[in-house]
Amino acid sequence: MNTTEKSIYLDYAAATPLSDKALMAMTPYFSEKFYNPGSPYLPAKFVRDDYEEKKSQLAHIIGAKSDDLIITSGATESNNLALTAVSESGKILFSATEHDSVRVPAKFHGGREIKVKPDGALDLDDLRKNLDDETELISVALVNNELGTIQPIAEIAELVKSERLRRRLAGISRPIFLMSDASQALNLLEISVGRLGVDLLTFNSAKMYGPKGIGALYHSRETRLHPLILGGGQEQNFRSGTENVPALVGFSVAAGEARSHLTSSRKNFQHLKRLFQKTLTDFSEITPLFLGNPKKQLANFSPVSFPGLDAERLIYLLESAHVYVSTGAACAASKGEKSHVLKACGFSDDIIQGSLRITFGKDNTEEDIILAAKKIATAVNSERTRLNV
Amino acid sequence: MNTTEKSIYLDYAAATPLSDKALMAMTPYFSEKFYNPGSPYLPAKFVRDDYEEKKSQLAHIIGAKSDDLIITSGATESNNLALTAVSESGKILFSATEHDSVRVPAKFHGGREIKVKPDGALDLDDLRKNLDDETELISVALVNNELGTIQPIAEIAELVKSERLRRRLAGISRPIFLMSDASQALNLLEISVGRLGVDLLTFNSAKMYGPKGIGALYHSRETRLHPLILGGGQEQNFRSGTENVPALVGFSVAAGEARSHLTSSRKNFQHLKRLFQKTLTDFSEITPLFLGNPKKQLANFSPVSFPGLDAERLIYLLESAHVYVSTGAACAASKGEKSHVLKACGFSDDIIQGSLRITFGKDNTEEDIILAAKKIATAVNSERTRLNV
Repeated sequence: MNTTEKSIYLDYAAATPLSDKALMAMTPYFSEKFYNPGSPYLPAKFVRDDYEEKKSQLAHIIGAKSDDLIITSGATESNNLALTAVSESGKILFSATEHDSVRVPAKFHGGREIKVKPDGALDLDDLRKNLDDETELISVALVNNELGTIQPIAEIAELVKSERLRRRLAGISRPIFLMSDASQALNLLEISVGRLGVDLLTFNSAKMYGPKGIGALYHSRETRLHPLILGGGQEQNFRSGTENVPALVGFSVAAGEARSHLTSSRKNFQHLKRLFQKTLTDFSEITPLFLGNPKKQLANFSPVSFPGLDAERLIYLLESAHVYVSTGAACAASKGEKSHVLKACGFSDDIIQGSLRITFGKDNTEEDIILAAKKIATAVNSERTRLNV
Repeated sequence: MNTTEKSIYLDYAAATPLSDKALMAMTPYFSEKFYNPGSPYLPAKFVRDDYEEKKSQLAHIIGAKSDDLIITSGATESNNLALTAVSESGKILFSATEHDSVRVPAKFHGGREIKVKPDGALDLDDLRKNLDDETELISVALVNNELGTIQPIAEIAELVKSERLRRRLAGISRPIFLMSDASQALNLLEISVGRLGVDLLTFNSAKMYGPKGIGALYHSRETRLHPLILGGGQEQNFRSGTENVPALVGFSVAAGEARSHLTSSRKNFQHLKRLFQKTLTDFSEITPLFLGNPKKQLANFSPVSFPGLDAERLIYLLESAHVYVSTGAACAASKGEKSHVLKACGFSDDIIQGSLRITFGKDNTEEDIILAAKKIATAVNSERTRLNV
């Protein structure tokens, strides 16, 4: 941006800039080590080795082995691929706050939404009620992409475990899998697929300072996936297409960086969040309604609503003040859709209409956050005056 | 490579280095203009505008409109997506020399192989013989990826046109589409989808000095595709997933570069090919068998066989001499499979066993080519002595 004023970006859940370290690691693979990793000569074999090493490091971060990962073009593809674990007659249960890349294919397959509580956490009673002999897959994002709600995956995994036991005793052979989209999570949560007890886990390079156009799907040995893309048989036949080596290298390096800063990042964002919420509360003439349960919320999420105001107008005013925030998922926002996440939490139209998604990231400083909170308050106050609310 | 001797890469059909111009164009989108093009604030809208502009330029290169293009993660995905134009009861006919990313999904759908002639050109008689009321799609790559054979697409399009007329007169409502994988073609052929008469055309960034992990599918308004990947509804609902802006920008710039150098590149490669073939013939003690019909062959392809020798051994010897060539498609080669392309052309096992795929690219100089030809001859002569053939 060619502006004299520094812009403040508070939409890290929508996109993250590529980390310098990731870019540096990728660069040699653009035009020097550009070889096809399937080619038979030495420099190409070195590229294959680098790919496998970086893939293995990526797998290690979530406590998995390289063979358990399928590299895809992104989280949307990973989520679609994960759902192929379900047979034609199997049922899918999915959290009502899932991202469209789960919701749309799950609905296409006749899946059923499971309710969430007002803080966005899955309603375990509703899950139990809907769980039956036909259920083959339960999909619950580890962290919701609008509220930042951290879901009780381990608890759901326990439920799945007892369901498996019940089926074994009842002689029911249909399998049941737990899937989780961890797209928003890997920056700030320590993830071990074993401890989480998931069979399928999606992760996303572009939300964690890695390159765009690449993602991964963890799948346990028990799942049987059906490739969406057939051809040369790459990724153990689960995902054909020449491997995108530079992107995988960048993804792996970015994931490693995130992992090594987990604790300090979390602390930093918790501090920024407190600062943000205090400043906004102090300066806003409408009491901000902070959404979600702070105890179950990812540290860099601070969604907030100003009931009675129009968030679209606020975004427009803030844009002029060089503060960039959103109303919800970018793909939904661009189609002018109301947030299905906030609706599922049971919020009134007033609250939904006036809600902003604020997500912090590694380039935000204390100063930024205070300034942004003040600017948001200014926009809120000006809208309040204009609308006389 | 940390070698004192310059290495000579002759496998541009497997992978191309990223062009400097493309990388330069991409760079701002990594960490400065990294925004999600679906986000509602101005800098993200600028990114959206850049994406649309570059996509439109890319479409223009093949004589299409932006809306006719679906951006995918690569040619393999494009080919898979193209085949979804076929209904469950519709039949696919595909050239026996198609790439695995067409063959495998086409076979999965019960498709039928159409023979090719010894030069790799589609056998139009066999196509006519197999064409029936159930045929919904004919897939013939514009340029074969091993022999470089340029297919008579316009002729096939005429055949499709008369078949359409016949069906209309006979009251048969089933549509018929012509699909072509142009992955290898865009560097050296002027392509207009209108003049070619295709309904579906795949192209591939990674084979034309663009970034990896991105491709495109042209589809005419008549086709009805079924998205493989559902979600946020990007690419007009045909391909969900956050747009990979940097990759698309690089792809478009690389395609533009290729287009502006078509004639000079073609002349240059024709010259290099002559030089290569002459030098190899002069120095080799086994007469090289140059495969394919030079009049129907892309300028940068010079596949060659030394019957009686083992190409794997030659590749190994040449690797030590820093000359990098392959036996065929990288994805097939890495699985140790014999070339289905050469088999389909009717070559004997001896010829297939001794064949190298040589493809030139923009970093090859006259000196490189002469030196490489001599080194190949040296390897051939040493193998000839060793085997006493």
